[in-house]
Amino acid sequence: MRLEHPHRTERFGAVHIRELQRVVELDSGEERMVRRADDLGPTCSVSTEAIRSIERDLVIVVPCMNETRKVIEGVLSGIPHDCLIVLVSNSDRHPVDRYAMEAESVEQFCRFAERPAIAVHQRDPGLAAALRAAGMPEMVAEDGLVRPGKGEAMLVGMALASLSGRRYVGYVDADNYVPGAIVEYCKAYAAGLHLAASPFGMVRISWGSKPKLRDGRVFYSRQGRSSEVTNRFLNRLVGEYSGFGTEVIATGNAGEHALSLELGLRMRMAGGFAAEPYQFIDLFEQFGGVLETAHTDVMAATVPVVQIESRNPHFHDDKGEHHVHGMRTQALGAIYHSQVCLPEVRAAIQEFLVAEGVVGPGDEPPVERVYPPVGVLAIDLFLDVLRAEATSLRQVWRPMPEGLRTTLPEQSLPVRERSVTVHIGE
Amino acid sequence: MRLEHPHRTERFGAVHIRELQRVVELDSGEERMVRRADDLGPTCSVSTEAIRSIERDLVIVVPCMNETRKVIEGVLSGIPHDCLIVLVSNSDRHPVDRYAMEAESVEQFCRFAERPAIAVHQRDPGLAAALRAAGMPEMVAEDGLVRPGKGEAMLVGMALASLSGRRYVGYVDADNYVPGAIVEYCKAYAAGLHLAASPFGMVRISWGSKPKLRDGRVFYSRQGRSSEVTNRFLNRLVGEYSGFGTEVIATGNAGEHALSLELGLRMRMAGGFAAEPYQFIDLFEQFGGVLETAHTDVMAATVPVVQIESRNPHFHDDKGEHHVHGMRTQALGAIYHSQVCLPEVRAAIQEFLVAEGVVGPGDEPPVERVYPPVGVLAIDLFLDVLRAEATSLRQVWRPMPEGLRTTLPEQSLPVRERSVTVHIGE
Repeated sequence: MRLEHPHRTERFGAVHIRELQRVVELDSGEERMVRRADDLGPTCSVSTEAIRSIERDLVIVVPCMNETRKVIEGVLSGIPHDCLIVLVSNSDRHPVDRYAMEAESVEQFCRFAERPAIAVHQRDPGLAAALRAAGMPEMVAEDGLVRPGKGEAMLVGMALASLSGRRYVGYVDADNYVPGAIVEYCKAYAAGLHLAASPFGMVRISWGSKPKLRDGRVFYSRQGRSSEVTNRFLNRLVGEYSGFGTEVIATGNAGEHALSLELGLRMRMAGGFAAEPYQFIDLFEQFGGVLETAHTDVMAATVPVVQIESRNPHFHDDKGEHHVHGMRTQALGAIYHSQVCLPEVRAAIQEFLVAEGVVGPGDEPPVERVYPPVGVLAIDLFLDVLRAEATSLRQVWRPMPEGLRTTLPEQSLPVRERSVTVHIGE
Repeated sequence: MRLEHPHRTERFGAVHIRELQRVVELDSGEERMVRRADDLGPTCSVSTEAIRSIERDLVIVVPCMNETRKVIEGVLSGIPHDCLIVLVSNSDRHPVDRYAMEAESVEQFCRFAERPAIAVHQRDPGLAAALRAAGMPEMVAEDGLVRPGKGEAMLVGMALASLSGRRYVGYVDADNYVPGAIVEYCKAYAAGLHLAASPFGMVRISWGSKPKLRDGRVFYSRQGRSSEVTNRFLNRLVGEYSGFGTEVIATGNAGEHALSLELGLRMRMAGGFAAEPYQFIDLFEQFGGVLETAHTDVMAATVPVVQIESRNPHFHDDKGEHHVHGMRTQALGAIYHSQVCLPEVRAAIQEFLVAEGVVGPGDEPPVERVYPPVGVLAIDLFLDVLRAEATSLRQVWRPMPEGLRTTLPEQSLPVRERSVTVHIGE
């Protein structure tokens, strides 16, 4: 993959936000005669080998809710083979058990593609029990189940990823009609994590375009309705600190993002649709140099945030105005209530939400739930309870070559040791 | 890339038509532990190295007519780096010179991507002069210019490809909104040509789906309106010979296809939109064992036609009913007038076209123009006249690394010798 170099980088303490980099070529070919990242040209090509070496260490989490089988199959077909697939579903189980269909799709796909995968249902009581036992009772609602938001699905995905022994986790939404876009996102994660050149790297995707139906034709608009607002206030926050207005943040709402688990296990995660914008807030709070930090090792390094503009359009279901408003309010609430949010920004957010009719004058936006970092989980306990109680848990194994198989593989999670980590996945 | 094995193969003389193979994974990962083509499993993975080795020998021709700049840039970004790009444009030159914009897009892209490309305008009098001088006056209309059809653009592309010294040529339409689909087509060409395992292989793509706007939402239909009819009559033709009805042909109208130049230079090409279905007809006529053949070497080998169903949807402009009817009539005309078309098939085509109101009862469908094979061209003469007279010809060079460049490269076509072929391209 060939990318533009970022034109500039904004710093917020140890957090280095690189300006949006366009994808120049989806496949930049063989390694001979390619520019390296430190060459002076306008673009750099990340070699297939560098990308593969990240992919071998990359878990792709697919949060999923009531998507059609065909769409899920397309998404799976786009996840590069060397990545480990983790499906976290919040689909209906009644009257039709949609999760059962999804799990079957995953199993069928993996049988043909000869690769492993893990699937779990977000509302499986066994999952809630595992999280509670491992030290994160905050994730469990009054009904005894994990809360149903997207941030919660992402957190579950990260917990599973941390069991795999791999070093990176990335997310792709399941409601994507273009398998080629999934390939691009995953390749961009690998290329970006490679270019980040830090153990604490993060990559966030800005969609090349988001097609909408308008007057009977498809219009390829540049930015989502919610992203524009989230980015504006995140940039305002950065600008108020530096004294220079900026548009550096282009990926406030990026559902498509990836990060090292070294970073991810230290990050607090917000629930619902505040999850993605809250990642910036948490980076600023923990590594921005404004508040006390618990992680002096990260502060001594850098936290590069690589932002990549994809080439593919993002075709997904339009979830409607209500959905957009909900996302926007949750995102702005996360910024508003942060300890690093300056009064000017807070006032601007309040003013915006009043004008939108979301809150009354003088009212504050709702506070989003924030969870502790996945790193606090007693991961061996989490795995034990999960294996014992989560009946929705499916693990598909990499099949043995036909001639070698003597028995069907056991349908239980293996425990392998690599240093001190407990593994699942392959 | 991982593909299903074809379930069966139909033979028509030396032509082996393999049933449609689905793409299972767009990226099938590293080479360790992959199934080979001759393994017994349901799928096979074509290694990155095998794909790259075809790509290094592959020319991708992009026939183009009045597409927007953004769409062309997306298409270019999807063509794997190691392939040589050839743009054959039939865009308007007045009142705005759209070809100039296209050529500029190609040049800009190639500067960033550090790769070569060739562009020419189909209606350049110099191109017509070159074709006439080289022995193909049939391509030139009364106005002294190359005829404006799509088949003619494809023929020009193949002539340019044959000058590059590369071994394969593939086609992708320029009106494609999904760069990731372009990547998939090119990877499928390379994988299919590898699996064809013959010097005379051909790969044809069937789109995974063709989205259409219907009642304000996007509907992902399986087959185009024109393809269904073309495939039906081509299959009828094959079935009449074998005595068994068949649905093996799924790619009669495949604009997306690739083939070896060893095969391509021997094939006659039809004009306009008959070009793609006529490829099957020409294969049957020349290598089907029904008529005399001029190529006993090909008959002694096989001509594998690999058909691949892509994962990506094909988002392009809807050119409307009129366009579809035109395509359909041209395609059926090509089948009808073939010497290998049996009377039963001819009667069925006639009946269909009468029912559609295209021809009157007793009338024959129009005869499509058929050109001699590109192999008849005196290729050195073609190049000489092209270089001297085709003012629209652009060749973008692979730039030298900055530190090494001493002068700007000349903007003229190089002539390199490799065995007896004249080269342009790199």
